[in-house]
Amino acid sequence: MEASDVTLLGMWACPYVNRAQLALKIKSITYEFIDDNPHERREMLLKYNPVHKKIPILIHGDKPVCESLIIVQYIDDAWANGPSILPSDAYDRALARFWAAYIDDKWYPLVKVLRQTEKQEERTSLIQKLSEGLMLLEEAFVNCSKGKPYFGGDNIGYLDIVLGSVLGWLRVTEIVVEVQLLDETKTPGLAKWADRFCSDDAVKDVLPEIDSLLELNKKIQAFIKAGGFK
Amino acid sequence: MEASDVTLLGMWACPYVNRAQLALKIKSITYEFIDDNPHERREMLLKYNPVHKKIPILIHGDKPVCESLIIVQYIDDAWANGPSILPSDAYDRALARFWAAYIDDKWYPLVKVLRQTEKQEERTSLIQKLSEGLMLLEEAFVNCSKGKPYFGGDNIGYLDIVLGSVLGWLRVTEIVVEVQLLDETKTPGLAKWADRFCSDDAVKDVLPEIDSLLELNKKIQAFIKAGGFK
Repeated sequence: MEASDVTLLGMWACPYVNRAQLALKIKSITYEFIDDNPHERREMLLKYNPVHKKIPILIHGDKPVCESLIIVQYIDDAWANGPSILPSDAYDRALARFWAAYIDDKWYPLVKVLRQTEKQEERTSLIQKLSEGLMLLEEAFVNCSKGKPYFGGDNIGYLDIVLGSVLGWLRVTEIVVEVQLLDETKTPGLAKWADRFCSDDAVKDVLPEIDSLLELNKKIQAFIKAGGFK
Repeated sequence: MEASDVTLLGMWACPYVNRAQLALKIKSITYEFIDDNPHERREMLLKYNPVHKKIPILIHGDKPVCESLIIVQYIDDAWANGPSILPSDAYDRALARFWAAYIDDKWYPLVKVLRQTEKQEERTSLIQKLSEGLMLLEEAFVNCSKGKPYFGGDNIGYLDIVLGSVLGWLRVTEIVVEVQLLDETKTPGLAKWADRFCSDDAVKDVLPEIDSLLELNKKIQAFIKAGGFK
């Protein structure tokens, strides 16, 4: 049996890990997936990502690559002969990087905060901010997709992976908070894109089921209510 | 007179703006520099960077590119025939992106906090963290430079620009707080690299003088003490 020289250290429900999985799938790269577990975790993280001690970590040969956006770009660079993930045009690439950073630094962190707060006033303010963010992302979708089905054009690309990977937790948040964030009236392009993305065969193989995420979320909330890590 | 089709909206003392200037200099691109001023500021920022309303903004033709790390990558991509800024090897590129994100998200923000706090206990803790960060960056320098003078090898590259651009404010902070952060004993490679980088002709043309930064810092501190923006 030939050992794969690509290993992904991750956890099935982590959207950042799912990004690496999606990129590997698009490039048809076989890899070993090591699902995060408490026994090996600390040792592996200290060995391969001592700076942040976080998953995902892609190990190619004996070289670790960390941080999901960097991993996706690395996969695109290192297996350059497969389908492209980043846009080929320099300006389109800059746009994709801009919106990816916006999603990770500004927009998506608020989704987690919304899911975990029970204060009504804070919820209202977060829902407002998230909706405004989705309007910006609708505009980004129009600019990037140029009338084609995906941010990446005819095929799933960088921004599809970046935003698409968080759709599961967005849906869980909508269910938990009983609010509709991704709205067909306000953001029609984005709403249709999300359906299209989630129905794609490659994506269905990788992204976790909403029911599994909901179940995990219940456990996380119970853990937090019990005081979290002491 | 032919109008340049490249404009940089910035401010002379901003390290993020200096990054764009360094990249443009390396690629020998002529451009118009619009130094940030309160009169035009709001209008320009709203027009070209409505999401973050921040400089630097590179305008190429009529297309704006925002966020310094994205701008430097864009300059490298769009003028691909000039000297390369990003490393050519996929793994080296991932490493450079990893450390650039570390500098911007984890390390450099603490330099600003250190400069602005007067609490001794907080200062001690920040100095400790910044020194640990410099030890990591020393290791990164050894790994990236592979015995050559720069992170980028024989020539100034991506990480040289990213870390080099903040050396001025690091020096100002050392003077203000009366501490040596970049230490020849603890981080010999990095200390020598910093001297080499700052003596480079291309860099000297772009980076502000320490005295000018010190003077500006005095004004900023006085402004903050007077209550800042009301």
